[in-house]
Amino acid sequence: MAGDSFGTLFRFTSFGESHGPAIGCVVEGVPPGIPLTAADLQHDLDRRKPGQSRFTTQRREDDAAEILSGVYEGVTTGTPIAVLIRNTDQRSKDYSDIAQRFRPGHADYTYWVKYGVRDPRGGGRSSARETAVRVAAGAIARKVLTSVLGRPLTIRAAVVEMGGLAIERANWDWLSVDANPFFSPDAAMVAPWEALLDGVRRDGSSVGAVVEVVAEGVPPGLGEPVYDRLDADLAKALMSINAVKGVEIGAGFEAARLRGESNADEMLPNGLGGVRFTSNNAGGVLGGISTGQTIIARLAVKPTSSIMIPRQSVDTQGRPVDVVTKGRHDPCVGIRAVPVAEAMVAVVLADHLLRFRGQCGLPVGL
Amino acid sequence: MAGDSFGTLFRFTSFGESHGPAIGCVVEGVPPGIPLTAADLQHDLDRRKPGQSRFTTQRREDDAAEILSGVYEGVTTGTPIAVLIRNTDQRSKDYSDIAQRFRPGHADYTYWVKYGVRDPRGGGRSSARETAVRVAAGAIARKVLTSVLGRPLTIRAAVVEMGGLAIERANWDWLSVDANPFFSPDAAMVAPWEALLDGVRRDGSSVGAVVEVVAEGVPPGLGEPVYDRLDADLAKALMSINAVKGVEIGAGFEAARLRGESNADEMLPNGLGGVRFTSNNAGGVLGGISTGQTIIARLAVKPTSSIMIPRQSVDTQGRPVDVVTKGRHDPCVGIRAVPVAEAMVAVVLADHLLRFRGQCGLPVGL
Amino acid sequence: MAGDSFGTLFRFTSFGESHGPAIGCVVEGVPPGIPLTAADLQHDLDRRKPGQSRFTTQRREDDAAEILSGVYEGVTTGTPIAVLIRNTDQRSKDYSDIAQRFRPGHADYTYWVKYGVRDPRGGGRSSARETAVRVAAGAIARKVLTSVLGRPLTIRAAVVEMGGLAIERANWDWLSVDANPFFSPDAAMVAPWEALLDGVRRDGSSVGAVVEVVAEGVPPGLGEPVYDRLDADLAKALMSINAVKGVEIGAGFEAARLRGESNADEMLPNGLGGVRFTSNNAGGVLGGISTGQTIIARLAVKPTSSIMIPRQSVDTQGRPVDVVTKGRHDPCVGIRAVPVAEAMVAVVLADHLLRFRGQCGLPVGL
Amino acid sequence: MAGDSFGTLFRFTSFGESHGPAIGCVVEGVPPGIPLTAADLQHDLDRRKPGQSRFTTQRREDDAAEILSGVYEGVTTGTPIAVLIRNTDQRSKDYSDIAQRFRPGHADYTYWVKYGVRDPRGGGRSSARETAVRVAAGAIARKVLTSVLGRPLTIRAAVVEMGGLAIERANWDWLSVDANPFFSPDAAMVAPWEALLDGVRRDGSSVGAVVEVVAEGVPPGLGEPVYDRLDADLAKALMSINAVKGVEIGAGFEAARLRGESNADEMLPNGLGGVRFTSNNAGGVLGGISTGQTIIARLAVKPTSSIMIPRQSVDTQGRPVDVVTKGRHDPCVGIRAVPVAEAMVAVVLADHLLRFRGQCGLPVGL
Repeated sequence: MAGDSFGTLFRFTSFGESHGPAIGCVVEGVPPGIPLTAADLQHDLDRRKPGQSRFTTQRREDDAAEILSGVYEGVTTGTPIAVLIRNTDQRSKDYSDIAQRFRPGHADYTYWVKYGVRDPRGGGRSSARETAVRVAAGAIARKVLTSVLGRPLTIRAAVVEMGGLAIERANWDWLSVDANPFFSPDAAMVAPWEALLDGVRRDGSSVGAVVEVVAEGVPPGLGEPVYDRLDADLAKALMSINAVKGVEIGAGFEAARLRGESNADEMLPNGLGGVRFTSNNAGGVLGGISTGQTIIARLAVKPTSSIMIPRQSVDTQGRPVDVVTKGRHDPCVGIRAVPVAEAMVAVVLADHLLRFRGQCGLPVGL
Repeated sequence: MAGDSFGTLFRFTSFGESHGPAIGCVVEGVPPGIPLTAADLQHDLDRRKPGQSRFTTQRREDDAAEILSGVYEGVTTGTPIAVLIRNTDQRSKDYSDIAQRFRPGHADYTYWVKYGVRDPRGGGRSSARETAVRVAAGAIARKVLTSVLGRPLTIRAAVVEMGGLAIERANWDWLSVDANPFFSPDAAMVAPWEALLDGVRRDGSSVGAVVEVVAEGVPPGLGEPVYDRLDADLAKALMSINAVKGVEIGAGFEAARLRGESNADEMLPNGLGGVRFTSNNAGGVLGGISTGQTIIARLAVKPTSSIMIPRQSVDTQGRPVDVVTKGRHDPCVGIRAVPVAEAMVAVVLADHLLRFRGQCGLPVGL
Repeated sequence: MAGDSFGTLFRFTSFGESHGPAIGCVVEGVPPGIPLTAADLQHDLDRRKPGQSRFTTQRREDDAAEILSGVYEGVTTGTPIAVLIRNTDQRSKDYSDIAQRFRPGHADYTYWVKYGVRDPRGGGRSSARETAVRVAAGAIARKVLTSVLGRPLTIRAAVVEMGGLAIERANWDWLSVDANPFFSPDAAMVAPWEALLDGVRRDGSSVGAVVEVVAEGVPPGLGEPVYDRLDADLAKALMSINAVKGVEIGAGFEAARLRGESNADEMLPNGLGGVRFTSNNAGGVLGGISTGQTIIARLAVKPTSSIMIPRQSVDTQGRPVDVVTKGRHDPCVGIRAVPVAEAMVAVVLADHLLRFRGQCGLPVGL
Repeated sequence: MAGDSFGTLFRFTSFGESHGPAIGCVVEGVPPGIPLTAADLQHDLDRRKPGQSRFTTQRREDDAAEILSGVYEGVTTGTPIAVLIRNTDQRSKDYSDIAQRFRPGHADYTYWVKYGVRDPRGGGRSSARETAVRVAAGAIARKVLTSVLGRPLTIRAAVVEMGGLAIERANWDWLSVDANPFFSPDAAMVAPWEALLDGVRRDGSSVGAVVEVVAEGVPPGLGEPVYDRLDADLAKALMSINAVKGVEIGAGFEAARLRGESNADEMLPNGLGGVRFTSNNAGGVLGGISTGQTIIARLAVKPTSSIMIPRQSVDTQGRPVDVVTKGRHDPCVGIRAVPVAEAMVAVVLADHLLRFRGQCGLPVGL
């Protein structure tokens, strides 16, 4: 009820502040018998890790995950899996001067007004550092999906717009995504974005981004009507990521501009006794339940609030102050949102797959 | 876990199919001592009710709500409040010819593939009829908010775009909203939208819409980090409404196109020991917690999928069929989404207010 | 969170006061495709119904259950099943004189002090009338168990002690249970209990009872370590029944008096590749997980608090008063607890069976 | 849903196996501003710790708790509090010979049949070692209770029966409880229990015990009708402790042997505008809600299943084997259940206090 858990049958409960001793989570509901090691988490954690290019914060964290429970001889046992990530590069002094000031765009003010006390070191609980835990849980969720489905399921994300510069969809190439520091699926956009971000950093400013998540191989039938719809849970999962201000599924806001006959995806026999759709405006979800098509979601990430340009604010005494955020920050937090968004989609799908199996048995075709 | 409940401390659990005997809900967590009668629900139910203008479905439902429990001598007792709405205008025969066909854009196929069985009458559980229950729960949530806060809190919504035609924000007038059949805050947009919808209906087509919800008077501090953020729960609440494909908070997707210094809302002393913001790109939420500013959310509603224009589909035997949806339908379901969106925001706020009070005591300033 | 729901994957949410318009529940998580009609609920409801012998309250309720949703053409659809039972024999005047008095042993005082308001008619929400809803939910749970297991599972209960007079276990005969008004498994105990209750009624007094529930055919593996253990959930389910003051599993309190070598049930190969136990002190649960043995639970029911013998109490003004409960009451509420206890065990088992299937797939051997 | 969490508003989620790297928990819902250090947990942890007398297992664990989050400058921040306890004395070899055998009375067989895999080292997840986590969570719950109530609340427990030898209630002295190795409130029972346990250990056997928990100062109004009753949640909390087979509240099973006029606790004006009860058969709970009287609960703990006397069992291949549990074990696990039972009662009360505050505001008189 305090909001630190996500999911129901597959659920993780997280803890930790940016500059406390550690962050981590407890993952419940993992089926037994799935091979799992800390190395399985590390790949995704490394993709999210700061300090990998000059376009992300230079804060260095090893983000080395330790599995404390729920695995025996390399295999899950069905009991809760605790993941611990020690905080190693804390440098509290970088932040000490703003402990009494509310940074605009940050959660400083809201935590203070809610709780009357806050951990100001590096943003405390509201720091994007928390998203490392999501990535760890997401890596376990991927394992669960593969194991229960008995086949691979692909969840990938990419940055499709940064600082107002959008990719060309015709250029989309998944191989490109991990080959540039922006997770861009359009190789032609790498140079413009480099130029953009170099300028932004020079200005001490920041820019926003739009991230798209694509999940292929999702079986039909996932999602619980009428409130825990798959798209509703995806919206919550993605909106809960730091700095996200919008979420859309399939055609999203553009669907509101289509006519009914253009928007509704037509169906044809697929020749195998099933169905194929002639388009995917629905983004793979109808009535809150997956259709078997590719799931498509997009999220809008606001520009990093930590900037070098002075902004007006107040302090805890209610006095006016200017705030300049020194220290190491991402010029575009949207970049590092990519593996986090993938992870949250994996968690939602794993949860709904287990819920489907609980109520109805396994999905059709498995 | 089956998805029929929404909320935690303030929670409603709903039931009912479009053409079954009744729909309704059980509302839990309502504080005791709040005056409540069925008439309190009826005002909002009537705003959602179909058949009120030529621009909504001509299906006629009295939508008369009966309170079965939890109220004694006109006052809530703290026990669950059951609300029952009998279905009176069912006309099953209107739908019988499409019982075996999957209507494109509808949940027919997904319910069938998920459950292996479905109630085809009027869309069954996936019908927009279910949203009457949300409105009833929302009316109770408003009562809870007013009672706990000890002062009014205003939650209103309006259609800000229909069929691609957007209102002029400079014309915004809340008095206009209930004075036209479109919930338009811009009186100048009524005529163009009338023309649009008359044409759409003539074509047997439909259009989408964008709805904006505005909540004023929300105290700071509502929202539970880090997964049950206020904005994450709003996103889930709004995305769970039938036909919604996108949700944004404050500047939303536009925030992704702003620079950090433009996006981050600056703060100044308000002269009363508190804070005032110089802008509201955040839409009243920072770090998942309300700031005390006005909450602003927008939702994209796809065009009604029930149209007279034939669409290709398959039947339950996997054979190709053409589907034409006869009967009575809304040319733009986005219109009737207005009171539903308000209701869901009320439910989220009431839930988070009680959760705040549970963990931390009452919000500051109350 | 307000306590009106029971279960997780299989869950029911109840509502209703003793003398309000109706009581009922919404049952979520029922797998689709299970034949179900109102008649299926009526058999169990009739066993709980008052007024069937001179040994239960003469209040007459038809307890006719109406299914409002979730069933189409006689088969469950996977959507929530609402059950409505109208209150028909309310006679509010019987209770009006004690509206301002706190009846000793009843929940009058605690509801009043908790909520500051209460519905005094017939005990309101705290009336045993609420247990009819449990029985309805339990009847659905039995259907779920049979359907998912693909074979019958037997859940039965009996009164094993009343007013301090215990049955002879050697006489146990399940056929006897429904053949006498006490649900006694020992036919020889019927006459003594008749004499006991006739005397108790003459005195305007009441007696307590011990009920035993026995569930045969439960597969091994049900129960979630370490807090949602099967025995822990059974304890909660049974202790939540009105007037229950104690719960034990298997040898129960007697286990505390055994030595380790006598208590631990030994295992032998069963000749079929499985295991058989040589005793069942565990009552079918080890480490919170079912063993595959018969589940055995007992519950202690206190004597009815509504008696004709004057008792001292206070009124809502804090003044001393004498309370005499006139009207129609059970001399031993433990009798009617029998079908209620069965129902709650069925609900717990159904919930854990679906949870097992969700996390691990179907239990071994199914 | 996987059973690793307890509570709702105040909730802890635990993890860890007996011989894995660590055990621990995440505690959510703790109000902000409460002074808390690891030392606050240590007092209760030390009372539970093994190896403190010759009457408990000689396994030595420092049980040193580390707080990883949710506390800043010695004060809770409202964010989740993670507690980590490293396992230091693991000696896996003591257990290796029984990895393939199902120890009678233990959870070996049920974990294996449920999950198809298990961590056999020291009982894995089913070990009583997990109860250290409960004690840590309980220590935090006590802090929450004191802070929210603004006054002390006393939760204590004692062993009232061991191996069939019961204390004399007239001798009850709370000062005695922590002054002997058995948590006996009756100093005169220390010598007989010493003799009993010395004999039991010599025989390689074990005995059971009955523990009584007493909570004084609980405000009236805690408990959520009708399923999350205070007594129902206490029953679940206590039955979920390892080796517990029975729970009773107040007069418990004896209540089933009383007449109505003897059982129902009479009320009198207390001279201060409130109520006092002339007896406490209810154990402080009526209708599932606390009365303001002392809460009394008892739990039956079965004898330790690990004994030196050979018992018949089977191995994972289904072959008959004899099992003798060597190693270090408690001759009576009921002793160390005392601080665990206190902790679980504290957790239940803290949760219900926050739930009360959430729905209704603070309890009357606070």
